[in-house]
Amino acid sequence: MMANEEFQQIQDIGFKSLIARFKDHTGVARNEVRKGIGDDASVLKLKEGRVACTSSEIFLEGIHFDLTYTPFTHLGYKVVTAAVSDILAMNAEPVQLLVDIAIPNKYSVQMIEQLYQGIDAAAKDYNIQVTGGDTTASHQLLAISVTATGSAEENKIIYRNGSKIGDIICVTGELGSAIAGLRILLREKRSWQDNPEQQFQPDLQAYEHVLQRQLLPKARFDLYKALQESEVKPNSMIDLTQGLVADLSDVLKQSGLGAEIYSPAVPISFETRNVADEMNEDVDKYAFYGGEDFEMLFTLPEPLVEKFKAEFDDFIVIGRITEREKQLTVNTGEEHNYQIDLSE
Amino acid sequence: MMANEEFQQIQDIGFKSLIARFKDHTGVARNEVRKGIGDDASVLKLKEGRVACTSSEIFLEGIHFDLTYTPFTHLGYKVVTAAVSDILAMNAEPVQLLVDIAIPNKYSVQMIEQLYQGIDAAAKDYNIQVTGGDTTASHQLLAISVTATGSAEENKIIYRNGSKIGDIICVTGELGSAIAGLRILLREKRSWQDNPEQQFQPDLQAYEHVLQRQLLPKARFDLYKALQESEVKPNSMIDLTQGLVADLSDVLKQSGLGAEIYSPAVPISFETRNVADEMNEDVDKYAFYGGEDFEMLFTLPEPLVEKFKAEFDDFIVIGRITEREKQLTVNTGEEHNYQIDLSE
Repeated sequence: MMANEEFQQIQDIGFKSLIARFKDHTGVARNEVRKGIGDDASVLKLKEGRVACTSSEIFLEGIHFDLTYTPFTHLGYKVVTAAVSDILAMNAEPVQLLVDIAIPNKYSVQMIEQLYQGIDAAAKDYNIQVTGGDTTASHQLLAISVTATGSAEENKIIYRNGSKIGDIICVTGELGSAIAGLRILLREKRSWQDNPEQQFQPDLQAYEHVLQRQLLPKARFDLYKALQESEVKPNSMIDLTQGLVADLSDVLKQSGLGAEIYSPAVPISFETRNVADEMNEDVDKYAFYGGEDFEMLFTLPEPLVEKFKAEFDDFIVIGRITEREKQLTVNTGEEHNYQIDLSE
Repeated sequence: MMANEEFQQIQDIGFKSLIARFKDHTGVARNEVRKGIGDDASVLKLKEGRVACTSSEIFLEGIHFDLTYTPFTHLGYKVVTAAVSDILAMNAEPVQLLVDIAIPNKYSVQMIEQLYQGIDAAAKDYNIQVTGGDTTASHQLLAISVTATGSAEENKIIYRNGSKIGDIICVTGELGSAIAGLRILLREKRSWQDNPEQQFQPDLQAYEHVLQRQLLPKARFDLYKALQESEVKPNSMIDLTQGLVADLSDVLKQSGLGAEIYSPAVPISFETRNVADEMNEDVDKYAFYGGEDFEMLFTLPEPLVEKFKAEFDDFIVIGRITEREKQLTVNTGEEHNYQIDLSE
């Protein structure tokens, strides 16, 4: 993959120069930011009466990403998506990002520049400013920690614990495609490892959609915008990063309630079904347990569903909030309905 | 070191249980925190008109800490000190902490519990709340990222770039003791590696002060408090973490000015001098380049120095801000004065 690319060692230019080189890769200059990169801390002044939502996540090479098949620009974009998605899931506007990067010397200045370019591109797409962070050496593995801060009126915040009995459970987009993309990448990686003399550049056009969903996912900023223009406010919301079952279970536990979902309603793309068929795997498992889709799950009182659908149409109803006793009941539309125990 | 200690594998209880176990290790419940751990993001409401200062740092095993000689509780305390110190250096009050931890499976549940206990203890000492973060698996090495948020009135913030010509340069406490402690620990580690049959529990009582400064440093919360009660406001401030020369140089570069310091005035403890003597090293190098002291450097208009000394006495004058042309001039009180070039 590195053929014909310049490879400059980081120790040749030093961390100071590396940091100086990327101080312009800071996304968008936000009004709220009084001080960005360059002091002991960044300084943020939110508009009168607003609250700050902050979320932090850490990503490790070999655990959360694999640089065999992940371009550095995509990695940079994806870690920002993950951080921003958490802020959007609070119904808050992302404003600021701090990025810590620990870099092993096996990677070049050029590779790290691509990483920062991906971060910068995402920050621009999500209209946020990179205001600080820490860049340091690492042994062996690349580690990235991203902290996003968002701004919201306090009464607009949507928590996980606000679901009410009878609420309709909605999800945006489609689920399971990120794990489908991962399945393809892992298959290609194995095939490449078995034939290491060939370059790792397989023809993956047929899988473009699912690969895009795995390598370059987008946070649902469009849902956030629609909610700001709407009078509709969901009772609870979470971004789907652990998988539908894990994330919905968390909403249910925190709300002290149960749910019934109708599995044929869970949105799954044609491309995702094709991958599952090819792999001889159950596509419902992709959608239920896959994770990393960065779609949103939210719950609405029934009368508001049609109203909101007229304002934002990329969501689908998959079930309903119930009393706690139902646990998470999965109605398959066939004989084998089952319950997932929420006490685990 | 692990003799007689329980060693429970993290995979035996799972990350969910691990996280649940430590959800009470969250320091102090702060009024400003509307939502702590448990949702997509924490929610913070600052008092009317205040700004949020945020700083993030990443710490990697083998780069920033060595668990051969660092107890897990001390490590937890120290990463919080580092984050809090950055907030105090803005003259802001630390409020909130997010902690990301990536844990390799060579460490036990008990060890990670000690780490969280250290974080909790520091959070209590600094009166802050742990409001979130991410706990995940890691290959091989422990990685910790800490993000602190502080609160301040906007006009109270002290930047690095505010120095004025004629300002007096002051530093708190004493410098070079953290690196002195590290020198002792590295010597003992080598000696232990040469004789691995003996346990690594050397008698280090004679070095207690410098070891404490290396392993369990405290942020200068007392200076912050004194500044809140005082009418004195420094023109610039930075916490000393990279070493006096590096940190002062940054203040000078950002202020577009130079400085003259009088090296015999730089405060160095008796214990630090002893270590340098034992190691046949130049103690001034410890103080100038050592780093990790977590003392504060600040600059004051000359007439305010005596006034502030009457209110807070643990600081010493080491020099004066000059026009840029002087660069960083070190006056040794002997013949070999020298200049450090700030354009590098």
